[in-house]
Amino acid sequence: MQSEPAFVSRRDLLSLIGAVSGSAAMYHAMTSLGFASDSGYKGPIKLEGDPKGASVLILGAGLAGMTAALELRKAGYQVRILEFNNRPGGRNWTLRGGDSFTELGGASQTCEFDQGLYLNPGPWRIPYHHRALLDYCKRLGVALEPFIQLNHNALLHATNAFGGAPQRIRDIKTDFQGQVSELLAKVTQQGKLDEAVTKQDREILLQALRYWGALDNNYAYKANLISAEFRGYAKDPGGGLTAVPIPGEPVHLSEILKSRLWVYLQNFARHSFQTTMFQPVGGMDMIGKAFAKEVGDLIRYDAKVTRIQQDDSGVTVTYTDLKSAGTPQQAKADWCVCTIPLPILSQLPLEIGDRMKAAIDAVPYSPSVKIGLQFKRRFWEDDEAIYGGISYTDLPIRQIAYPNTGFNGAGKGVLLGAYLFDGPNAYEFTSMTPAERVRRAVGFGAMIHPQYNAEFENGIAIAWHRVPFTLGCAGNWSDQARGEHYENLCQIDGRIVLAGEHASYIPAWQEGAILSSLDAISRLHERVVKT
Amino acid sequence: MQSEPAFVSRRDLLSLIGAVSGSAAMYHAMTSLGFASDSGYKGPIKLEGDPKGASVLILGAGLAGMTAALELRKAGYQVRILEFNNRPGGRNWTLRGGDSFTELGGASQTCEFDQGLYLNPGPWRIPYHHRALLDYCKRLGVALEPFIQLNHNALLHATNAFGGAPQRIRDIKTDFQGQVSELLAKVTQQGKLDEAVTKQDREILLQALRYWGALDNNYAYKANLISAEFRGYAKDPGGGLTAVPIPGEPVHLSEILKSRLWVYLQNFARHSFQTTMFQPVGGMDMIGKAFAKEVGDLIRYDAKVTRIQQDDSGVTVTYTDLKSAGTPQQAKADWCVCTIPLPILSQLPLEIGDRMKAAIDAVPYSPSVKIGLQFKRRFWEDDEAIYGGISYTDLPIRQIAYPNTGFNGAGKGVLLGAYLFDGPNAYEFTSMTPAERVRRAVGFGAMIHPQYNAEFENGIAIAWHRVPFTLGCAGNWSDQARGEHYENLCQIDGRIVLAGEHASYIPAWQEGAILSSLDAISRLHERVVKT
Repeated sequence: MQSEPAFVSRRDLLSLIGAVSGSAAMYHAMTSLGFASDSGYKGPIKLEGDPKGASVLILGAGLAGMTAALELRKAGYQVRILEFNNRPGGRNWTLRGGDSFTELGGASQTCEFDQGLYLNPGPWRIPYHHRALLDYCKRLGVALEPFIQLNHNALLHATNAFGGAPQRIRDIKTDFQGQVSELLAKVTQQGKLDEAVTKQDREILLQALRYWGALDNNYAYKANLISAEFRGYAKDPGGGLTAVPIPGEPVHLSEILKSRLWVYLQNFARHSFQTTMFQPVGGMDMIGKAFAKEVGDLIRYDAKVTRIQQDDSGVTVTYTDLKSAGTPQQAKADWCVCTIPLPILSQLPLEIGDRMKAAIDAVPYSPSVKIGLQFKRRFWEDDEAIYGGISYTDLPIRQIAYPNTGFNGAGKGVLLGAYLFDGPNAYEFTSMTPAERVRRAVGFGAMIHPQYNAEFENGIAIAWHRVPFTLGCAGNWSDQARGEHYENLCQIDGRIVLAGEHASYIPAWQEGAILSSLDAISRLHERVVKT
Repeated sequence: MQSEPAFVSRRDLLSLIGAVSGSAAMYHAMTSLGFASDSGYKGPIKLEGDPKGASVLILGAGLAGMTAALELRKAGYQVRILEFNNRPGGRNWTLRGGDSFTELGGASQTCEFDQGLYLNPGPWRIPYHHRALLDYCKRLGVALEPFIQLNHNALLHATNAFGGAPQRIRDIKTDFQGQVSELLAKVTQQGKLDEAVTKQDREILLQALRYWGALDNNYAYKANLISAEFRGYAKDPGGGLTAVPIPGEPVHLSEILKSRLWVYLQNFARHSFQTTMFQPVGGMDMIGKAFAKEVGDLIRYDAKVTRIQQDDSGVTVTYTDLKSAGTPQQAKADWCVCTIPLPILSQLPLEIGDRMKAAIDAVPYSPSVKIGLQFKRRFWEDDEAIYGGISYTDLPIRQIAYPNTGFNGAGKGVLLGAYLFDGPNAYEFTSMTPAERVRRAVGFGAMIHPQYNAEFENGIAIAWHRVPFTLGCAGNWSDQARGEHYENLCQIDGRIVLAGEHASYIPAWQEGAILSSLDAISRLHERVVKT
């Protein structure tokens, strides 16, 4: 068994490469939503050959920087890291009770969550095919638990459909699939597919549609115990003398179509979001902390880089110590791996070539806002049987995500009360004060879960365009920028190479940061060993 | 928010009840596969009124029996339980290293799993809508973790399709949905749906099919970055200069149809198997143990019931102590809740009416075989990126289920190497010695995972028709038996009432046992309080 899909012949691959560029527009649409996701990792990197004491200065102790540090030291380099924050991880970040954070504009928040509760303001899920990240989790002993992306009992909500009443995902999903199957089965029976499907296949197709669509013997999808076995019941089967079940009435296809709730169904089928997904037990920053256990001795925290210079003999980085705010200091090394996010980097004096400079300037960062809300009890579980997963809405909050840990417990809980990625709502919420963001999230959320009003306790809101160490969430490559600038961004420029999710085809994912770093240090090492 | 599906009007319900009987045949087909699953639980039972010291003898310390004991004692009854095994739980059972088990026929097995590994030979998953069971888990402090039913990266395998090569579930699922969408989109465009779908809806349907089916702008499903975003890639997107992704070639609809792998897709959409499912952390018997913490003082273990008598004044149960094998003993009480599985009960001398006796005799039990296999390493994760979930095959082993805990860990692991439920294979495996069952499971499994040959360490095999305390897996009601006997089985007969999954419409599920028990003790209590 290999991890490659079946049925890819080498001959086909060549023609497919041609197809790639044609689909670029759609691909961009998907990557800009943070959807692109797979990984070409083939196991731990092997940096063979002696670097002969060469030194590398790494800028940024996020996953890209710490991956580089871990592997380069192992390969024999002298390594140091400069990090802006007073903690490792960068966007690999978890907020817990007592943590405080000051955003650009000066607003400060202190997280008031109870012990054991947390919010991951940055990455929060790990696909099974992010092999590099999973391998580091394994090597570094980071415990994982499932992240529920699709919870059939979570909700889909459109303000102007169904009188504003949220619908269960299982109903919309099953009823759409059932009625689509019914339509296709009917035209198949009527012989309207004859050109596209052979007579032999037609019979099997009918059978398959009946199974797949929960159709009855006449290929109809309707209220009966067949559809109920998929969509759920009006009265559930039980025990003893009160046990007979009653099916519910499907939502008519026309209503589903007009509601546009079908747009959300793809969120459950995408490769990036397929089962089995993971989250680290205890918070995403368990990964950053595990890396720091290995390379923490190399990190200088609170170091704000202000200038990057290079010449034939090496790299000189000027930085200020944010704690002392004293005289600017300098760090020197033979080489530099720079993982500083592009919106920051583009504002620094840099001694690099025009091509890389143009590339750095060409990539805007997506806005993103995440809001964590603590509630007195896990009412979504107790009252509504929603255990983990995500409800989607066309309200400005876009999503409500339920905790994927502590299931069925008696204590309090933290919801992700809003997750705005890109789009006008993300900018709008960024422009508000943190308190106002939280207030809005509670107000909108109460339209889906009225229990918000009685159960809300406190909240915290991170708007990534106001986060001083990134000035945005993640690299938002346009198609044109990819074509013109991507390779220039990734090339080694003299003694400097860039790494991070922005230097990958998996933007906004930790896997992109790690793969980018591994690719960058492979090329750097090759050059070092050659010289 | 309520847990009921949307759009069930009372008017509709009446007509639906009529539809129920018409769908009985299909319903039977599903219940006999253990598929029926929902729950009408409305919160903790309230047994109001004073039983005035009435006593209840409960037969069986499975979930039905212990539920009855817990609630009846709380309501003021004098309660005792007789249990055949030397542990609580009944079919709620977990095997760990050091546990031994002797089946009918005399074959003994001792489980050789390493510490921390286990097999649940009976129930192994808990749907989110099994409200009663989840409520008891909450009240009794049983920690839960997700059970992965659908893992997109697990396998579907048909011996005579694709040259015997297993296919990734994500490929079959995405490619089937994509090509079905394409077919329907084409006939929609050609105006062949005009009668069934309005012109306005037609435009939205096309758009929805494009999203849902991963179609391109011409409504074609083919190898491109659109389909790859759902089915996965031939070459994954990466980082740095080796990052450009290449899509894979879809499996043609005709091949999917002929392979019949589509039959398995429904296993991932059924209400019984939908996300979010659960398993108790540490093994299913954590539930039985948690119940026993409450009612263990009431249980007499190793007590084999040999006779059940009743008259106007009470119930007398004769039993032998399996440890001493001495003189038969008697236990007396005012009332009896009997949860003994029907294949055992039908062989006991019972003083009950003809109707209940006929009902007890009318329900055969399904055969079921589960085989646990320990391997030296979690090769399914390391080599194949399969984290939890189930692979399906037409080989006699039917399923290979991967552990849903300890993900990405470095240690050993136990697979469910076969799960035969009903059907000839289940009987065939039941007739073998345990060692032969394990040998076959390894042999067949190696056709899907060749690593079996090098990595297998030990196994254990439970065939439920040879389990002395049940003589089968679960009640297998025929439609005819339901119609003739179900109510007679559940009625109170003098001073005796039956409970267990067999006395429910959710056979083979723990929820059925609990709901049946709650219904039985409600009626019993009503009678006690009245007299």
